[in-house]
Amino acid sequence: MAEKVSVYEVGPRDGLQNESIILPAETRIELVRRLTKSGLKNIEIGSFVHPKWVPQMADTDAVARDLDHTSDMAYWALVPNAKGLTRAIEAGVTHVAVFMSSSETHNQRNVNRSIAESLEGLSEVITAATSQGCTVRAYISTVFGCPYEGDVDFDRVLEIGDKLLEYGAFQISLGDTTGMGQPIQVGENSKRAVEQWGVDKVAIHLHDTQGLGQTNAFAAYLEGVRNFDSSVGGLGGCPYAPGAPGNLGTEDLLNLLHSIGADTGVDATEIAKTSEWLRSSIGFNIKSRIQL
Amino acid sequence: MAEKVSVYEVGPRDGLQNESIILPAETRIELVRRLTKSGLKNIEIGSFVHPKWVPQMADTDAVARDLDHTSDMAYWALVPNAKGLTRAIEAGVTHVAVFMSSSETHNQRNVNRSIAESLEGLSEVITAATSQGCTVRAYISTVFGCPYEGDVDFDRVLEIGDKLLEYGAFQISLGDTTGMGQPIQVGENSKRAVEQWGVDKVAIHLHDTQGLGQTNAFAAYLEGVRNFDSSVGGLGGCPYAPGAPGNLGTEDLLNLLHSIGADTGVDATEIAKTSEWLRSSIGFNIKSRIQL
Repeated sequence: MAEKVSVYEVGPRDGLQNESIILPAETRIELVRRLTKSGLKNIEIGSFVHPKWVPQMADTDAVARDLDHTSDMAYWALVPNAKGLTRAIEAGVTHVAVFMSSSETHNQRNVNRSIAESLEGLSEVITAATSQGCTVRAYISTVFGCPYEGDVDFDRVLEIGDKLLEYGAFQISLGDTTGMGQPIQVGENSKRAVEQWGVDKVAIHLHDTQGLGQTNAFAAYLEGVRNFDSSVGGLGGCPYAPGAPGNLGTEDLLNLLHSIGADTGVDATEIAKTSEWLRSSIGFNIKSRIQL
Repeated sequence: MAEKVSVYEVGPRDGLQNESIILPAETRIELVRRLTKSGLKNIEIGSFVHPKWVPQMADTDAVARDLDHTSDMAYWALVPNAKGLTRAIEAGVTHVAVFMSSSETHNQRNVNRSIAESLEGLSEVITAATSQGCTVRAYISTVFGCPYEGDVDFDRVLEIGDKLLEYGAFQISLGDTTGMGQPIQVGENSKRAVEQWGVDKVAIHLHDTQGLGQTNAFAAYLEGVRNFDSSVGGLGGCPYAPGAPGNLGTEDLLNLLHSIGADTGVDATEIAKTSEWLRSSIGFNIKSRIQL
């Protein structure tokens, strides 16, 4: 029996928000449509943050309104706070993602709050979201290393995850935000997360900044992780390492998963075609190892 | 304690022989000198095959003569038969590599012999080499899949390896000649080889044709492999897949090994500088994931 693995496509959000090209809503919609066609069932379509901070995500309302949220598709949108949640729900979003960091310094610089303050805020946002029928996914970032603090204690990651699940998140996505993770570490910590929360509640969100993205994915897979975030064409980047590869490319993830016989339900050729479209029609630098 | 891992640099042989640019002996010598400077203790410098078949390797005699074979360095040369061995020894070579395939069809097409005939021939070459004081390394190719036959029975690989060790080879390098291996398979078969022959007698020779080279290396490492072949800059190619990545890049291998704390004794920056020199001064297409 092939192992079922879920791929969470984050290109239209985490990918695009870290690229310098800003796409109009209609192109973002076209991207999501192409990704949907490939068989993906989970696509993060954008974020409801203030356009002053992330201009790439300015028209997420329009993107969300255009999609069919009543099908078997989960179109996820990132919300930073109650205001973002309100905008998301008004645009028809039923699947929201929230985020915080496991490093005090990174959290402070990213959202100008302490970890304790973020937990308090997310408690409110998650409660508000679930009470309005939304499913909530929670990202914890810098779980395998922080560009400011270096090593991150994984006990703290597990404690934060415990709380977010208690507040009502359905799943924790462990984010290797700047690609500092290495495969032995990723394997060991993946195992701890799967033991603590169960396989369905654990996802891993890898970056390829150091060129270890696919190998880290394999290490996580070996320890039982079955939910993986990735970005079409490796779209995205790292604000701390200009020009470096960004998110783990969906092509590279699928190449690995399909090679070992896992069943993702995703057509890798359609993904590669979408990357080729992003390259030839829009001018993105495609960073996945495998290309058409 | 950091795990000791040996890196066998095959760029000047397996790399160069599959590139269309043909280097003069002095440039090949310069390449080997740069690689030696990085701390590598095992470098394959060329092959003694007929220049009609592999013009890239025509002047291996001159390359071999220029190097210091009496130091703690092992400069390996590939020999196809007794004639090649004689040339190698005359040029001062003390470390020779022999090769055959684990697929009947691939062996027939590559050396125009059956597996039985190759074993008989290698028995003579290995005996002749060891009796003249040479250390012999034996490659078995297509061990994780054959472009003609598809799946390869690993029992056959182990049987061939048993014989080559019995003839006097000091180590078997398991070759994923066209990069068909996938990490679960590579891990399982690596484990069998290490159990059967012991860690020192097993090396793995990976290609990145399908983009899985580094992940396959990690799978082999997890199962106890401590000797890895790789090629500076990912030099090399695959005759069955023009333009595809070739050998696993030494940079990508070192990136993995150093990330998990293994001790290779090799300076990854010097390797990357050598790749940059190959690119900027000679015009090679550098295929490693990590670049300067």
